[in-house]
Amino acid sequence: MSGKLFDRVALIGIGLIGSSLARVLRRDSPDTVIVACARRAETLEAARRLDLADEVTDDPAAAVAGADLVVIATPLSAYAEIGRRIAPALREGAIVTDVGSVKSAAIRDLAPLLPTAVHFVPGHPVAGTEHSGPEAGFAELFRDRWCILTPLPDTDAGALARVTALWEQAGMRVVTMDAEHHDRVLAMTSHLPHVIAYTIVGTATDLEESLKSEVIKFSAGGFRDFTRIAGSDPVMWRDIFLNNREAVLEMLQRFSEDLTALQRAIRWGEGDKLEELFTRTRAIRRSIIEAKQA
Amino acid sequence: MSGKLFDRVALIGIGLIGSSLARVLRRDSPDTVIVACARRAETLEAARRLDLADEVTDDPAAAVAGADLVVIATPLSAYAEIGRRIAPALREGAIVTDVGSVKSAAIRDLAPLLPTAVHFVPGHPVAGTEHSGPEAGFAELFRDRWCILTPLPDTDAGALARVTALWEQAGMRVVTMDAEHHDRVLAMTSHLPHVIAYTIVGTATDLEESLKSEVIKFSAGGFRDFTRIAGSDPVMWRDIFLNNREAVLEMLQRFSEDLTALQRAIRWGEGDKLEELFTRTRAIRRSIIEAKQA
Repeated sequence: MSGKLFDRVALIGIGLIGSSLARVLRRDSPDTVIVACARRAETLEAARRLDLADEVTDDPAAAVAGADLVVIATPLSAYAEIGRRIAPALREGAIVTDVGSVKSAAIRDLAPLLPTAVHFVPGHPVAGTEHSGPEAGFAELFRDRWCILTPLPDTDAGALARVTALWEQAGMRVVTMDAEHHDRVLAMTSHLPHVIAYTIVGTATDLEESLKSEVIKFSAGGFRDFTRIAGSDPVMWRDIFLNNREAVLEMLQRFSEDLTALQRAIRWGEGDKLEELFTRTRAIRRSIIEAKQA
Repeated sequence: MSGKLFDRVALIGIGLIGSSLARVLRRDSPDTVIVACARRAETLEAARRLDLADEVTDDPAAAVAGADLVVIATPLSAYAEIGRRIAPALREGAIVTDVGSVKSAAIRDLAPLLPTAVHFVPGHPVAGTEHSGPEAGFAELFRDRWCILTPLPDTDAGALARVTALWEQAGMRVVTMDAEHHDRVLAMTSHLPHVIAYTIVGTATDLEESLKSEVIKFSAGGFRDFTRIAGSDPVMWRDIFLNNREAVLEMLQRFSEDLTALQRAIRWGEGDKLEELFTRTRAIRRSIIEAKQA
């Protein structure tokens, strides 16, 4: 779906997600002016070199001036400071959205700072790879993936529709959800898997040297998938865990109880219990294949 | 590498691995006679239909009669019974190998039963998918993967060389290793990841219904990779955990300690500690990419 939805888009953060969205806009909406904002000069230089932006700046306030859409695509820990800096510079009627993985934190840090004449539409395109930075992005990243928007009770319906259209242009299926509910679902589908993958890869790095080198060599048996997940951006993930603490700890607690039960079944040789669980999990895999998410 | 290495090969078990090896033999060694043995009539019927064998039987003793190579490719729990049944029927000088994931258990269950005039070469082609059965196999399954052979001190060098040549024909890189060491390496690279994946998918199935359906819907964020692993064959994996109990429990214990430490860091908001770990695990991912196992 082509067409210009916005005249001037400010991308605050031009990493994997920001730069992929820039590529979508370049492809489908070549008349849209893109302003990229990042803290590091190398990142801005890359954005220019890759033709991801018409203008670049390290000043969020300058970036948002005149923009009808502002997309915050930085780690969550930067949100409050960005909110403070852009608030006075936002155009009346501008739409502010974000792509962060914890929606209650995004709302907590941004909503109180934004002027009432600005429309805030918190969002989360559920897409990514373990790579980061402007070079890692690609326009097809979002294709056939879900985008979850978590509007507030007073979010303007027109603004919500325009952000929906943006992500649909990127090829996403858009749903809306309550922010707290989003954070619990993602704690299970994404945050807990990352906690676990980071942990197991950490456990492997602490092995004695002879074992460790062979773990890398023979990683094809399952471990490799975990290392891919555990190769994701460290700062982004630090922020996700710190900002979705309650939901992550709850899911982690459930997981730990189940792991202890499984450990006990292995120790006591309870084969029937193991086989029963493994048959149940195979059924879940089939549901996911049927839901076309595999 | 084409060429006939064996005249008559008995495949005891014709699932993912057995049927993939049959396909390799059909491709590279069309004159080799293949005998497939399985307990279920449907499996034997599938082996015939897919032209994976010249002869099929549900009797292991009949299958191995006259074979110069016997490949045991069943779940580990069947080994002892198979050993008892084939021992009197094995040809003098025959080579017996297997593909099981726990080498000390394979040796424990088979070595004492086999006649001294037979050569036993325990082996583990480290390759697989989450699918099982004769339909799931394909000749390219083994390509560029590792095969670990764990010969005994008295294993015949000629027999070891011939089994090495077989897996090299299938495209594998073959190494030899002590059986106990193999079992510890695989406990970390394969068995622990499977314990964890089975657990987390089990945790998700126990969620309240509204959350569970959305976990399936939005599984793209990491959970999906775990469901793939947790979709693996239930009986095969039950047997692996029961037969590599000590090594799996040791790795699980290390993992649990590390998980508890990470959980504590999340609870107390120790961002530096999280970022430090995540940076370390990213480096491991890079080693795996450099080792060309990604």
